[in-house]
Amino acid sequence: MGGVGRRLAELGLTLPRPMVPPPEMDYGFALVRLSGGYAHVSGHGAVDGSDPLMRGTVGDDLTIEQGYRAARLAGLSMLASLDEALGDLDRITGWVRVVGYVNAMPGFPYTSLAVNGFSDLITDLWGAAGEHARAAPGVVALPLNLPVVVEATVEIAHP
Amino acid sequence: MGGVGRRLAELGLTLPRPMVPPPEMDYGFALVRLSGGYAHVSGHGAVDGSDPLMRGTVGDDLTIEQGYRAARLAGLSMLASLDEALGDLDRITGWVRVVGYVNAMPGFPYTSLAVNGFSDLITDLWGAAGEHARAAPGVVALPLNLPVVVEATVEIAHP
Amino acid sequence: MGGVGRRLAELGLTLPRPMVPPPEMDYGFALVRLSGGYAHVSGHGAVDGSDPLMRGTVGDDLTIEQGYRAARLAGLSMLASLDEALGDLDRITGWVRVVGYVNAMPGFPYTSLAVNGFSDLITDLWGAAGEHARAAPGVVALPLNLPVVVEATVEIAHP
Repeated sequence: MGGVGRRLAELGLTLPRPMVPPPEMDYGFALVRLSGGYAHVSGHGAVDGSDPLMRGTVGDDLTIEQGYRAARLAGLSMLASLDEALGDLDRITGWVRVVGYVNAMPGFPYTSLAVNGFSDLITDLWGAAGEHARAAPGVVALPLNLPVVVEATVEIAHP
Repeated sequence: MGGVGRRLAELGLTLPRPMVPPPEMDYGFALVRLSGGYAHVSGHGAVDGSDPLMRGTVGDDLTIEQGYRAARLAGLSMLASLDEALGDLDRITGWVRVVGYVNAMPGFPYTSLAVNGFSDLITDLWGAAGEHARAAPGVVALPLNLPVVVEATVEIAHP
Repeated sequence: MGGVGRRLAELGLTLPRPMVPPPEMDYGFALVRLSGGYAHVSGHGAVDGSDPLMRGTVGDDLTIEQGYRAARLAGLSMLASLDEALGDLDRITGWVRVVGYVNAMPGFPYTSLAVNGFSDLITDLWGAAGEHARAAPGVVALPLNLPVVVEATVEIAHP
């Protein structure tokens, strides 16, 4: 177990099953797409395999704290997909760019506080190499009515 | 005519006129921006030249099937711009990353089914090289009230 | 003072203080993230340090012209962050990709006119090298209730 795996264990975290879109959402895209030393990762939410762990709108039926938790769970789901695609999370040498889409009430001004659930997880695990450029727009709809969906680009070391 | 052109013909597809923003939307950006072996493509919707082919909100005045069709037409418009910018669609060696913004009703959980209209087109034409990382946020507004707008990054071979 | 600094002065523009998230929005991300010859820039809005200069929804309490101004101010804030991170704005050799998120009324069809406030600033300063791929989705919520938030990727020359 490499450094990130050890750190996950120290934090008492386990990864969910890698995301599998439900059958009616069968798709022609890749959860992780490698290109030129980077992995581009599709939008991930709080799911365990095909099962959503949270649903709803932040600022309406969900609090900021619940949005933070949804973003953290989205991060764990993304790590499960990256672990499967890369074989080893320690191949990720840096986090470059993240967009956290928040299912939000109109005018809700705290979307960034929800997305911090993702960013805090990543910097807890990777330290300074985890610091990423980020945007946190509030949207009206997300697949499966997930509260937060995060996409990312990471630097990877070749095997 | 290269492989992608032949495949378009086999599928009975023709490309629309390349997107031209209407005069009142004159702009200082590029439809296709080349950088370091990649082409970054601006948001494209279902347009033929300056003429929108569809308008509206998926889950309200448009069905999922109509959203799927709008995303497919957005793909054809994007290919027209790439064809014009690159001179040959066969220079595209892979699709890396796509964001499909869906003009959606609040809470609409099927945005990804609409964006599949784009992704299916690309994988029909490029096969495994067309598989891309993707996000499908539902938004409240898009230029010209288009139902779906897609932006993308593709790998290109140098001439 | 380099070429961009001179051009800013000619246009009578001064940069605001670099963006500092307010204390309650403390965060684990980077305003500017360097990777492989590019700088990826986090979402920036119309702020001076921690102080929002404009708030609201374009098409509702703000006009298109006010949205344009908010996008231009977002650009100046982004340049302040890039100046601080790079030490010299002339290290930016090209603008690659921009997403301008507009806090918009449902169905508002002119989001691109607002984001032009950003794009016009950049092409005024960089000329053809400033032309970028762009998307302009209309969203329901942005941090601090800013009218426009812009994220970007730029090419940089190494020192």
